[in-house]
Amino acid sequence: MADEHEITPWDVSDTFQEAQYEKVAREFGAKIIDEQLKNEIKDLAGEVHRFIQYGIFFAHRDLDQLLDGYRKGRKFYLYTGRGPSGKIHLGHLIPFMFTKWLQDRFDVDLIIQITDDEKYIFRDTSQADLEKYTRSNILDILSLGFKPEKTHVMVDSRNSDLLYNYGIKVAKHITASTVKSVFGLKDSDNIGKFFFTSIQSVPAFIVSAITGHNVPCLIPYAIDQDPHFKISRDILPKLGYEKPASIISKFIPSLKGSGKMSSSDETSGIYLDDDGKTIKRKLMKYAFSGGRDTMEEQRRLGANPDVDFAFNTYRMLEPDMGKVSKIYEEYRSGQILSGEMKMIAYEKITGFFETLNSRRDSVMKNMNDYMFNPERFL
Amino acid sequence: MADEHEITPWDVSDTFQEAQYEKVAREFGAKIIDEQLKNEIKDLAGEVHRFIQYGIFFAHRDLDQLLDGYRKGRKFYLYTGRGPSGKIHLGHLIPFMFTKWLQDRFDVDLIIQITDDEKYIFRDTSQADLEKYTRSNILDILSLGFKPEKTHVMVDSRNSDLLYNYGIKVAKHITASTVKSVFGLKDSDNIGKFFFTSIQSVPAFIVSAITGHNVPCLIPYAIDQDPHFKISRDILPKLGYEKPASIISKFIPSLKGSGKMSSSDETSGIYLDDDGKTIKRKLMKYAFSGGRDTMEEQRRLGANPDVDFAFNTYRMLEPDMGKVSKIYEEYRSGQILSGEMKMIAYEKITGFFETLNSRRDSVMKNMNDYMFNPERFL
Repeated sequence: MADEHEITPWDVSDTFQEAQYEKVAREFGAKIIDEQLKNEIKDLAGEVHRFIQYGIFFAHRDLDQLLDGYRKGRKFYLYTGRGPSGKIHLGHLIPFMFTKWLQDRFDVDLIIQITDDEKYIFRDTSQADLEKYTRSNILDILSLGFKPEKTHVMVDSRNSDLLYNYGIKVAKHITASTVKSVFGLKDSDNIGKFFFTSIQSVPAFIVSAITGHNVPCLIPYAIDQDPHFKISRDILPKLGYEKPASIISKFIPSLKGSGKMSSSDETSGIYLDDDGKTIKRKLMKYAFSGGRDTMEEQRRLGANPDVDFAFNTYRMLEPDMGKVSKIYEEYRSGQILSGEMKMIAYEKITGFFETLNSRRDSVMKNMNDYMFNPERFL
Repeated sequence: MADEHEITPWDVSDTFQEAQYEKVAREFGAKIIDEQLKNEIKDLAGEVHRFIQYGIFFAHRDLDQLLDGYRKGRKFYLYTGRGPSGKIHLGHLIPFMFTKWLQDRFDVDLIIQITDDEKYIFRDTSQADLEKYTRSNILDILSLGFKPEKTHVMVDSRNSDLLYNYGIKVAKHITASTVKSVFGLKDSDNIGKFFFTSIQSVPAFIVSAITGHNVPCLIPYAIDQDPHFKISRDILPKLGYEKPASIISKFIPSLKGSGKMSSSDETSGIYLDDDGKTIKRKLMKYAFSGGRDTMEEQRRLGANPDVDFAFNTYRMLEPDMGKVSKIYEEYRSGQILSGEMKMIAYEKITGFFETLNSRRDSVMKNMNDYMFNPERFL
């Protein structure tokens, strides 16, 4: 039981290690993405996204079946989300960058659920902060460049009519026992927490509900969200809907090297509103380094890029895998020093932020075009 | 604990007796309506409604304070409701008849909540039946003659946006332990049941929430609904709203004499769509009688009107308490026989139904005018 509860959507044990990912995924009932599936993705998408190649998106549920259907002409839609409990940092963007790639390559609709109700129920964020983060998070996410005509941002508090009416259909099939065992909830937890997973299940079938016919759904998410969708997969067939498929990522390591990036600790990540000076300072001062203690040692023994925040961040943002391999090799072998690696990451991050900034005004002006509206699916 | 659970909104023990009402009300923390309060009502309303005089509405929470405020110029609003799980029978109308009197005498707004979501979560009623009962129940209730300009029918599935957004504020302050102990829920119950009481609390403060200042709320209900409002009273002050006051009724005895009238057994009550022939047959065949086995015995010993369905129904519908006393005396003394008592009730019921029918067309045509709309409170 302890193992089962090591990861829930609200709690990840501090001792969670890289080596445990595959074990946990298998225990959850997900499959590891294998060569055959990568080939299928390459065949259909034209490439295998670097996040899959790097093993960041590493597991799935029924992605093979979904792609099989796609090959035969059945379009799916994407569903992902975010709880707006704080400002957005680089780690938060990883699943959205990947989702954007999926949208582009498969040319499909995307629902982005902003679970402000979840954050209200589970945290002590004030209403004013929730509204502020909701707005700024949406803006940050949309600046990645999603297609306005196929992107549907569902803010739970604004779409509560649909969410509650469909949510109770899900809730009717979930017992308190189930949410206790799946999420580790206790009798001392509030009844909003007990109910919430019903709301998070709704976007997984809302397009089918609106259109009146089954439209397959693919959900990219970090592994801590798996319990929600394990439940969705159990319940949806009882309501006449298909099980959603999923593609599952690891957590993005924090600036300080362990755990996932946290939005409650400002020094744990690089935020989208950090200026160049702040980014440089954070990298130099806090970023966990795979380098050695002295320059001499570094030159002689080389670094460990795999655990290095600067290298990993660079790797996330650089689509040219040849360039990444070269840097990896030079850093590993001692040709590049830690400070230099941090500057390489710095350039990459600021360049990436500039791209986002260049889109922000236009996104802000047209934000309404992206908002969820059931009629857009008809 | 067994005692505490003898009455919940979903279950009333078969062995529940008249004599237990006051005990249960006191255990729940409600007060019995005393002479002083009756005098206050008479003073403000011009009369004491017969349902209070007959002890049908027999207990309250903070009604004295609410009337005190009213005397000083603070208008309150009324909130009552119904779960649309079946057709409406006479027993269902009792609280609404009383509520109409309150609306007329105090000239106040009234919210009628139709909890179709509750019925979905707690029963196996189909969606189609729920919609049918929702519509016909609303029509039946409104035919009593509520003021359209001050009556606001809130159907949960249609007002789910407000109900869910405010409901989670309530839910955040209620633990699973609480709903287990108050409603007797178990881990094997679905999470919709755990959450539902939050939704039922919302109309108790919605007018305050909409207008931005505290408006007192008075809730007339049968005692089985008390657990919901006991919770509301605990939570609302935490959200900055006043505790709702309440006026509490006994159950209406069923046609067959024990338990409350049930909508799942057609012979347990007289339905609003029963025709004259059916009403007569039900009264003659099924109605529990306080009379004697033979006419001779009846003439000699008299009847027991207090347990007699026909007499009690007549008493509910006849506003002239002098007439009622006369019939009571004649029936009790043996001058009136059971069959005659049933005919007196029959005349009264059919006359009452004619009044309702005479209003139905106009209500049906103007049903939208009665529907809840937050802007009507501004």
